Amino acid sequence: MARTTDQPPPEEAGAHPAPVLSERDGGVLLLTLNRPDRLNAWTPGMADRLFALLREADDDPAVRAIVITGAGRAFCAGADMDTLSGISGARIEVDGRSMAAPARLRKPVVAAVNGSAAGVGLVLALFCDVRFAADDAKLTTSFSRRGLVAEYAAAWQLPRLVGQGRAMDLLLSSRVVLGAEARDMGLVDFSPPREDVLAEALSYAGVLASECSPRSMAAVKGQVLRAQEAGFDDAADESAGLMADAFAAEDFAEGIGSYLEKRPPRFPGLGARE
Amino acid sequence: MARTTDQPPPEEAGAHPAPVLSERDGGVLLLTLNRPDRLNAWTPGMADRLFALLREADDDPAVRAIVITGAGRAFCAGADMDTLSGISGARIEVDGRSMAAPARLRKPVVAAVNGSAAGVGLVLALFCDVRFAADDAKLTTSFSRRGLVAEYAAAWQLPRLVGQGRAMDLLLSSRVVLGAEARDMGLVDFSPPREDVLAEALSYAGVLASECSPRSMAAVKGQVLRAQEAGFDDAADESAGLMADAFAAEDFAEGIGSYLEKRPPRFPGLGARE
Amino acid sequence: MARTTDQPPPEEAGAHPAPVLSERDGGVLLLTLNRPDRLNAWTPGMADRLFALLREADDDPAVRAIVITGAGRAFCAGADMDTLSGISGARIEVDGRSMAAPARLRKPVVAAVNGSAAGVGLVLALFCDVRFAADDAKLTTSFSRRGLVAEYAAAWQLPRLVGQGRAMDLLLSSRVVLGAEARDMGLVDFSPPREDVLAEALSYAGVLASECSPRSMAAVKGQVLRAQEAGFDDAADESAGLMADAFAAEDFAEGIGSYLEKRPPRFPGLGARE
Repeated sequence: MARTTDQPPPEEAGAHPAPVLSERDGGVLLLTLNRPDRLNAWTPGMADRLFALLREADDDPAVRAIVITGAGRAFCAGADMDTLSGISGARIEVDGRSMAAPARLRKPVVAAVNGSAAGVGLVLALFCDVRFAADDAKLTTSFSRRGLVAEYAAAWQLPRLVGQGRAMDLLLSSRVVLGAEARDMGLVDFSPPREDVLAEALSYAGVLASECSPRSMAAVKGQVLRAQEAGFDDAADESAGLMADAFAAEDFAEGIGSYLEKRPPRFPGLGARE
Repeated sequence: MARTTDQPPPEEAGAHPAPVLSERDGGVLLLTLNRPDRLNAWTPGMADRLFALLREADDDPAVRAIVITGAGRAFCAGADMDTLSGISGARIEVDGRSMAAPARLRKPVVAAVNGSAAGVGLVLALFCDVRFAADDAKLTTSFSRRGLVAEYAAAWQLPRLVGQGRAMDLLLSSRVVLGAEARDMGLVDFSPPREDVLAEALSYAGVLASECSPRSMAAVKGQVLRAQEAGFDDAADESAGLMADAFAAEDFAEGIGSYLEKRPPRFPGLGARE
Repeated sequence: MARTTDQPPPEEAGAHPAPVLSERDGGVLLLTLNRPDRLNAWTPGMADRLFALLREADDDPAVRAIVITGAGRAFCAGADMDTLSGISGARIEVDGRSMAAPARLRKPVVAAVNGSAAGVGLVLALFCDVRFAADDAKLTTSFSRRGLVAEYAAAWQLPRLVGQGRAMDLLLSSRVVLGAEARDMGLVDFSPPREDVLAEALSYAGVLASECSPRSMAAVKGQVLRAQEAGFDDAADESAGLMADAFAAEDFAEGIGSYLEKRPPRFPGLGARE
């Protein structure tokens, strides 16, 4: 969320529990938004912590896939109301690109939307690469009902996920859609029962970590992101260059070898960017 | 539709009933295509009247949401066949941007597709912001079966609603899809039974009018439209500027206030563009 | 597929059966990938033959629609493993644009995905205009599990068919989706039972060939392709010019005439580009 320029946000002053929990199991890093008593409402402190953990994960060769979820019964109910009330009428600065942090990583980020995702909480999920949502989780953009706009490039991202018509519906009306409807429209990719959503997201991330080449996934993320803004010819020519590189590289030999030998692949991890 | 350059269209010469009816209930304006004996076939006179009413509505602070429907059993069966026959082989001028008029308004426009929508009638619905269609309404692009092309930027809009593959299917084959199938593919957003389609569209528009900030909706419409042609960075930076403006503005204070006080919001209406 | 620069691919050396079968019935040309004992694995020889047949078809006035399918139980299981093994670590050249050949034709190309489509086999289907897949056909991108990247502009095409989120899911995980799920997400347009998939695709192509104007379909294909890279204004202005041309042309007169006379249209075929 935005930060006022003249005073630190109140939640950084005292001794609070960590706003984001971090836990790694094999190649999968689980990040948990951790203000359950406030439905994990988004604060500047939570944003700073989450983005720092994402950057660390991208540089850590032990991490191959990341899952983001929420503690308690919500995913993230939106901007913290105290923060919002504080900035009403104030002169503030916003980094409109900040919420796309998961999309900008080289490593795949999976959202496990365990419960309500509203406003900036939904935007966070939109910029993850793959989305699981509990079939009864409530999702809403919220902005139009608060006198706000499509925040953090949501007007760019949402139509690219669900099409322009559905994006207009969701942004104009701020109506609540449940996880199951969200899946039908492509807003999320999977909508298991609430009790299974984290386990299924972790299992999916586990497959990415154990079966898929980290270098392949990093290439794919960059290709898809750039192709949103590129013409066909440029995307095709880029793919030709990347293909030629890949054919000559280690992961392809291992991909073919493991396939022919019918064994799990042993792809090397991805450390700090060279 | 197109107009021949050398003679006025026949339906403007005589004393016909109004080609579009207009009726306001609270913040919701209902516009009804009104040539039911011709399945509301599109004529230059209907186009002029509809677009004029839309412009007026955009400037009228009492109007917060607009619904377009058709009188009788069709929504709009396409270009009037008499008009079409008249222009075959003729030298005509076309404004390819004209049908996007609903999308270019600041206020939300909801299509209530009560029956058949074909050709330019379907294009009109495509450029509304949100679409309701009767579950048994017949929708078709028609163009390829008449020796025509994807008219009025339909080749731009349709893939952005349903994806490129489904758009190709619909434009190449001109096959008829019913409202229910149209909803599955994102061509329309809701497909209630025919007897409910207008009531549901009006109810949806009523929520927009009473619960959603007119300034928010105007911002969102512009953001989504521009984001179709913009890169992520530009869309994100634009959103940052709009967010900063919104935080300092009246509608945000009212949005937060009404939420905290658990009362309906009182957002001001939107008059003529400054 | 890629070709090594220093030696001819092995399958061009000997006397093999034709890698692609070609058969015309009325206005519909059926092209069948024909290495059933290898699940129609993609080879340079198959690519050369398929693309040559497509070019010929585009210039042949007798051909109005094209269907691509696979012999035996697969559509195309991806790049031939012998070819792949041969290029691992080698210095190769790739034409990243080549697989879009069906999309670049003026005539409509329908994929009849009769069974597995993997890797480059899936990419071939993605660049057809309309896709039928057997409801139990297995579709997968494959690339991330082989250490490869999104090949042949698949990172550009796939999000435009299914949205960015689903494209990321399919490209990152290389998970298998069946035809029925593929249809739900817009990856294919129709998913009949396996025993009906070719017949239904041929029937669809037959309607294109007999009911739809070849010039209209050529215009639509170009419009949709260009509109993916164009702004609204340019697409709208292009449509205006094409509409004016179409109103003055032969196919429109025939389209109107056949409609008014309630008879099948007699649109002229499309020969070599002028």
